[in-house]
Amino acid sequence: MPSDRNRILVESIKRLLRRGATSHLGKIVNKTHAADLSVVFRSLSLTEQRKLFTMISDVEQKGVLFSELDEDTFQDLIEGMKIEDIVRILESMPADDVADIIGRLPEDISKTILDKMKTAESEEVEGLLRYDDETAGGIMVPDFIALKEDNTARAAIESLQKEHSDVEMPFYLYVVDEYGKLVGVSSLRQLVVVPPDTPLKDFMATDVFSVQTDMDQEEVAKIVARYDILAVPVVDGTNRLVGIVTVDDVIDIIRKEATEDILRMAGAGEEFVETKSILKSTRIRLPWLFASCIGGILAFFIIGKFESSLLKFTYLAAFIPVIMGMGGNIGTQSSTIVVRGLATGRLHARDLWSVVLKELTIGVILGLVYGLLIGSVAQFRYSTLALAISVALAVVSSMSIAALVGSLVPMGFARVNIDPAVATGPFVTTAIDIISVLFYFVIATTLLGI
Amino acid sequence: MPSDRNRILVESIKRLLRRGATSHLGKIVNKTHAADLSVVFRSLSLTEQRKLFTMISDVEQKGVLFSELDEDTFQDLIEGMKIEDIVRILESMPADDVADIIGRLPEDISKTILDKMKTAESEEVEGLLRYDDETAGGIMVPDFIALKEDNTARAAIESLQKEHSDVEMPFYLYVVDEYGKLVGVSSLRQLVVVPPDTPLKDFMATDVFSVQTDMDQEEVAKIVARYDILAVPVVDGTNRLVGIVTVDDVIDIIRKEATEDILRMAGAGEEFVETKSILKSTRIRLPWLFASCIGGILAFFIIGKFESSLLKFTYLAAFIPVIMGMGGNIGTQSSTIVVRGLATGRLHARDLWSVVLKELTIGVILGLVYGLLIGSVAQFRYSTLALAISVALAVVSSMSIAALVGSLVPMGFARVNIDPAVATGPFVTTAIDIISVLFYFVIATTLLGI
Repeated sequence: MPSDRNRILVESIKRLLRRGATSHLGKIVNKTHAADLSVVFRSLSLTEQRKLFTMISDVEQKGVLFSELDEDTFQDLIEGMKIEDIVRILESMPADDVADIIGRLPEDISKTILDKMKTAESEEVEGLLRYDDETAGGIMVPDFIALKEDNTARAAIESLQKEHSDVEMPFYLYVVDEYGKLVGVSSLRQLVVVPPDTPLKDFMATDVFSVQTDMDQEEVAKIVARYDILAVPVVDGTNRLVGIVTVDDVIDIIRKEATEDILRMAGAGEEFVETKSILKSTRIRLPWLFASCIGGILAFFIIGKFESSLLKFTYLAAFIPVIMGMGGNIGTQSSTIVVRGLATGRLHARDLWSVVLKELTIGVILGLVYGLLIGSVAQFRYSTLALAISVALAVVSSMSIAALVGSLVPMGFARVNIDPAVATGPFVTTAIDIISVLFYFVIATTLLGI
Repeated sequence: MPSDRNRILVESIKRLLRRGATSHLGKIVNKTHAADLSVVFRSLSLTEQRKLFTMISDVEQKGVLFSELDEDTFQDLIEGMKIEDIVRILESMPADDVADIIGRLPEDISKTILDKMKTAESEEVEGLLRYDDETAGGIMVPDFIALKEDNTARAAIESLQKEHSDVEMPFYLYVVDEYGKLVGVSSLRQLVVVPPDTPLKDFMATDVFSVQTDMDQEEVAKIVARYDILAVPVVDGTNRLVGIVTVDDVIDIIRKEATEDILRMAGAGEEFVETKSILKSTRIRLPWLFASCIGGILAFFIIGKFESSLLKFTYLAAFIPVIMGMGGNIGTQSSTIVVRGLATGRLHARDLWSVVLKELTIGVILGLVYGLLIGSVAQFRYSTLALAISVALAVVSSMSIAALVGSLVPMGFARVNIDPAVATGPFVTTAIDIISVLFYFVIATTLLGI
């Protein structure tokens, strides 16, 4: 839905809420897709949210809304609800979404809910809860179509008509042997096209991609994206089929991981904070700025050490911003390219030295270009060759080191399996600031003989 | 394929290439998925790439490889090929991928290719080329299943068996009226489940999402992602069904747009440059650094104006890094949050003032916290209250302005439909640097009475 239509929706719902036009409101709410309602909810107060929520008559729509809402909004919303009502809604939802929600609730509430759910449902959910949240096991759905390899196409179609009517996305028909191990894959389309008596094993594809339950969700997403498939089967250690990860969840993962990386690199937490309260956003952003604060204070003490030189050559101070700025910007380029390259699989941690060497080379080249330029400005302004050369050399060293640090840190972190994005942003910038200032003053005092 | 397996593949292919073990190599190449081959190609020289490419026997695999290769690699690869061979491969590919490739080739080559292609194929491709590359029309595939609304389920299944065998992803069956206008949607699954004589219009869903040919691809991706659908139908101005956009293309768009945003914000071009040559990467990154260079030189002239003040209070220089650093970092936080929020639909350009006000508030709060902290350090070190207050005020103003500029610029750009990411990165940082330095010196010279 384009954002214009969304705005109109938000505004008319707010107006109707003010007027208390319940029956009109009910009609709108029940005709609107839950994904759009979740956007509307962001603009409403808690009281308004509760009022609107009770107007939804379809329990499944309530379920979709549950999984679409922001975590905070959801927690606030269910606080006033009866456990029985929550349970009834959860029972209408796919098990993976329920597991997601339950996993984030306080333990006492989640236990109460699981106890009240139908045994079959709660067992499925508890089965999923055993896996780490961010692995294939944690994001898979346990509803898939598995057929025995000896079944004929006709028998397969009949079983689809009788059972499996609740399966979310029935485009792949997985084929298993007598032990439940994954041996092949077919499709509804093929069932319809082959002669009805052909057994599945005669026309199934046997080169089926599968992932293990403990594979990281980012890896799973990469596989689905790379091979353009709609779902990937998840198998346990003995190759038994236990679930599938569907492409709609993969899209969510890709978007979420990109957002996380971007925010982490900027030192702005990892979840999107703009929709949170001012106090909450402030609290999330505060600690990251502390790195930069400590770095700045360090730089301050470094410059303090050179006070006597500054006294003789006051204009040294005027070049601090340009040297810091050039280093900072090329450092951001390098670390961003490396972090994104690692995330998209374009770069690999094992290529550490070739990547760093390349970045360093680029840093030196760009350093020479801008060193010459900025040095010329210095010479033009102060006609002191030693100063101009100092400034030029400081720019070269600052930009080279920045490219080196900016690529080495994230590559190094990736090598030891720490998320390169989280470690990169503010720390790299701060380190580059300090190093740039230090090098500048050392070079300048040496060349100027002070 | 996990990256370990990929590395092993690359290494054994390189080894076999060196040894000239053609038959063994041929077996491996023809058993490997084209998506993996495209990764292998990145690590090979052009000669090796050409050798490997001729070993692929399946023309369709060559086609998949064509669409998976990086643009540069692709252009180099086809340079040595006969037009007839290229045409034969393109004819085996989906029309949207062909249009993508043709659109990027020099006009004389693309014309020759289109002339040599089968009329039906080239017409499809030329039909797609009419649409802007980054719109629904530019990314849709013209192969979809459209059935008349009066058809029965049985007739529909029969027509699927006879025609439509080349359709890429046959999970949605679109229903059109006699003029080809989209009126509903059904699924293979439903066809199999309903009584065979039911006409489509009796069981199709009529609330079908569709997009116009000129909708921006990012909007299309958002719709597919939000409603968890596998394909969205594309209609022309008269609601005639002309194509579908499938979820696998949506994934590529989401990843590409995220990469573009990240790189643009860092001033590192928009395409991933690390796999390009050093010279090319340098050329792409050079101009972005120019903004920062100009900004630095401006800051230098500003500080030059205060030379006499610096002469009296040398230690003023020592606080330049911390004030610039704090402003720069909070500015990055603000602009990153806003750019990502706009990209994911969490924020809207119409909410400009509420977002900017919130960021400004956070900037002031964080500015007060860190202003107090850094001011205290200044007081502790120099015991000059006027200096400590100047530094504190400079931090507050720098951080507040940075949060303001960092959010206002991208919000403003979004409002006038300029990509906020491209305009934000280096420009915002540079602007903040200059303003921070200027405010600092104005405040300090005023308070210190110099």
